[in-house]
This record gives sequence, structure tokens and C-alpha cells, in this order.
Amino acid sequence: MVTVLKLGGSVITEKDAPETVDEAAIDRASDAIAAALSNEKGPTSLVLVHGGGSFGHHHAARHGVSTTGGTHDAAALTEIHRAMGELNTVVVDALQERGVAALPVRPLSVAARRNGLQLPLESVETMLSEEFVPVLHGDVVTDSGAGGTILSGDEIVVAVASGLGADRVGLCSTVPGVLDEDGDVVERITTYEQVASILGGSGATDVTGGMAGKVRRLLDLKAPAAIFDPPNLNRFLTGEPAGTTVDGR
Amino acid sequence: MVTVLKLGGSVITEKDAPETVDEAAIDRASDAIAAALSNEKGPTSLVLVHGGGSFGHHHAARHGVSTTGGTHDAAALTEIHRAMGELNTVVVDALQERGVAALPVRPLSVAARRNGLQLPLESVETMLSEEFVPVLHGDVVTDSGAGGTILSGDEIVVAVASGLGADRVGLCSTVPGVLDEDGDVVERITTYEQVASILGGSGATDVTGGMAGKVRRLLDLKAPAAIFDPPNLNRFLTGEPAGTTVDGR
Repeated sequence: MVTVLKLGGSVITEKDAPETVDEAAIDRASDAIAAALSNEKGPTSLVLVHGGGSFGHHHAARHGVSTTGGTHDAAALTEIHRAMGELNTVVVDALQERGVAALPVRPLSVAARRNGLQLPLESVETMLSEEFVPVLHGDVVTDSGAGGTILSGDEIVVAVASGLGADRVGLCSTVPGVLDEDGDVVERITTYEQVASILGGSGATDVTGGMAGKVRRLLDLKAPAAIFDPPNLNRFLTGEPAGTTVDGR
Repeated sequence: MVTVLKLGGSVITEKDAPETVDEAAIDRASDAIAAALSNEKGPTSLVLVHGGGSFGHHHAARHGVSTTGGTHDAAALTEIHRAMGELNTVVVDALQERGVAALPVRPLSVAARRNGLQLPLESVETMLSEEFVPVLHGDVVTDSGAGGTILSGDEIVVAVASGLGADRVGLCSTVPGVLDEDGDVVERITTYEQVASILGGSGATDVTGGMAGKVRRLLDLKAPAAIFDPPNLNRFLTGEPAGTTVDGR
């Protein structure tokens, strides 16, 4: 049972202060992960991915780098990469302090964009088979023709989950799920049409904090995916429904 | 023209002091690399690999981790990995300060030992095609059945040079080349038999600071490889013979 879990950048950092960790949030998430890994209902193999939050976005914006707009300035790319790496270090340490055998995986070292995202999984697979917990993060990535661009945590989740044939995928963010017109959590989404009126049609701009894009990507997966908030992390990790389940199979 | 160059750990660190960079040596090597990249006789594509020297060895020895003896202790592996990473940061910074578009590549993130060393090269290839200079380093690596073991800079050089089909390979270490009985540099080695009397037969322990193993691995490459000391780095990088050339083709 391979589970891929993303901790959103907005969950683990202080959104409004550059490069400020939300230590209490990281502690709570690490507690839940450590408890789930020693719970028989918890995942047998876990891959973690975290966003950059206030660490990455600040530097990326300053250098004008985005998921599509690149740079050939190695120093700028390294600055963004190191900021993300500092956050990764905090997450890995918090997990190790709780007995979780977490190991860092830096996407710049392994991934590339050329004819789509390439993310070879030899390292992650071997970590899992040796009972480690790989911890990836939103990062910069070299990009054929564009120098280096931003690689989002969401893209990594989809690539890792597809490549590993993950059984369950979870995105823990600051919203409790996909919300309907009344602000209630939509329990289950199986087609995009079902939520197009809430999230915007196929031609609409992604005005919902990236939710339309997230849902579309998750619908393409061969595994059910859940979108939930931190209070539901423990439910997700022990196999219970949490937030909105997106299942396009 | 892809060139793979290794800077030995003993070249860029103070051998006798734990975690001490030899800044003057790194500055000189970075000057030579920056100059060669803007010289028409220099490499058009360059991959750098550096050893761990006094950074990696100290932590590796303390935790009893070697290239064959592994551990499942994630904190121990992370400690070794981070020490190597600090050295990598110094090397990348020295190069960037001289205008070299260096980017870090952390082997733990990309490599694995299972049925031999796996080192997917999508990231390195894309860095080269975008005119960056990837900088890899001796590291820890997850190892099927053993947890995590040490991955030496020499192993990385061979895997990268083979995988990329490199045109030239250089190992810059503290010795001027393979030395014969009189202490003179052997100019050219094309078979192991030629140097077995100096380096030890096939069953001998590797008592020559790893030189026997280095020569054997380099003889298997489909490119000429040079073993030389820092004063010859510029010669090597501008296409001239330097130290001992090992060519088993």
C-alpha cells in the first residue's frame, strides 16, 4: 500500500512572512505521520511531498521564475532551490525526531522537463523498499529550452503517484476540500463536469487558488485522491474518507 | 565534447582537519574551470564531481558506513549527506562567483544501488543541454538490502561518463598520476597487466590509496581518462595530455 501525501506550502509556512516556518503545524503533521506509520491501518509505504509556501514563492517571484517562465541564471535557480531546501530540512528533522526514517529527495537533482516532466523513481523506489520515507518538495527544475522553471509540489505528486502506481493520494491544504456554492465540502468528484460550475469551465482562468487544475490532474490518476485540511490528516492516513475524494477511474 | 572532471576530496579539503575546506585550492580549481570554459580549446559541456574529503569520511567512519557496509539509520545517513552538501555548496558558490553556471546535483536524490548502481541522467543531460554545469559529489545512496551505503566520487564519475558517452574523463587528485617503481609518472596505461607489478595483481588488496581500483574502472570506459594533480588541471581542461592517461579502448 503506497500512499503519496502532499503537505501544502501554506500549511507548513507562515503565508504572510517570507521564509517563516509554521513550527506548530509541522509538529502536528509530523505527529500524525509518525502515529499513522505505527498504526496497522496506516500506510505501509509513504512518500511525502511538500510545497514551498513562503520559502519558494518569495525568491521565485523576485527572479521572475514560474512553472512556465524560466531563467538561465544559475545563481537565481540555486537561491530558490536552497530556500526550498531549508524548509525540507525542517520537515525531515521534525519527522526524524519522531522516529520516522525520513530522507530528503531534491527534485532539481533528479527531475527535468523535456517532452513533459521526467522524474525517474529509482531512488524513491529503493528508499521505500528499504523502509525509508522519501521527502520531496516543490523546487526548480531544468527545462529544455527555458533554462530552469518552477516545479510545483502538485506536479510532483502526480508524477510520483503515477510512476509508483500509488494506492492512495492525499493533498493536505488549508481548505477542507472542494467547496460547493454554499461553502460545503463536495464529498466525491468523479468527472470534471460535475464541478465545472463551481471551479470554472475548461476555458476558465484558474481563479480558485489552483483548485481547478488540482482536480483535473487528480482525475487523471489511477488511484483515489483526497483533498482535505490538517485536522483531517489523521483520518486520511488511517484509510478513512477525508475532505473531498477525487476519483476519475 | 562532454568532459567529466572529478576534483578529489583530498584536493579541496584539509585532509587532517574535519570539515575544513581548502579555500585556496577550490579557488584555484574554479579559476582554471572558468578560464577553460571560455577558452575555445576547453570543454563545450562539463560535468563536475567532487569527493567528500574530510567532510564525508569523518561522519561516515563515525557511523560505520562504507561503500559496502550500510545502515538503516536515516539520521546517520542524513548527517553524512548534509556534510557532503556543505562542501558542495562551497564548490558551487566558488564556480558561480566566477561566472560558471554551476548547479548542485545531490546523488542521494537520484541514485540507488539495486542490481548495481542506478544513476538516471535526465537531470544532468538537461542541465548540459541548457549550458549549466552540474556539480555532483560523493554521497550516501540507498542500497537494496543494506539501507544506505557510501557512493564514492569515483563510482559517480564512471557511471556518468558511461551514461553520457563522455569524450574525456579526468581525475584530479593529490598525486601527479600512476607512479612506477622509481616514482615517475607512467604516461599511458592501456591494460591492467602493464601496471599489475606496481599496483598489485588482481587478487591484491588495494593498498595504493585506491589507485588499483581507479585504474581498473577507467580501463573499462569508452573514453580516455587522465589521472593528474592540480597544477595540471588547466592542461587537462584545454585538451592536452596530463599525468597518466588510462585508455583501455
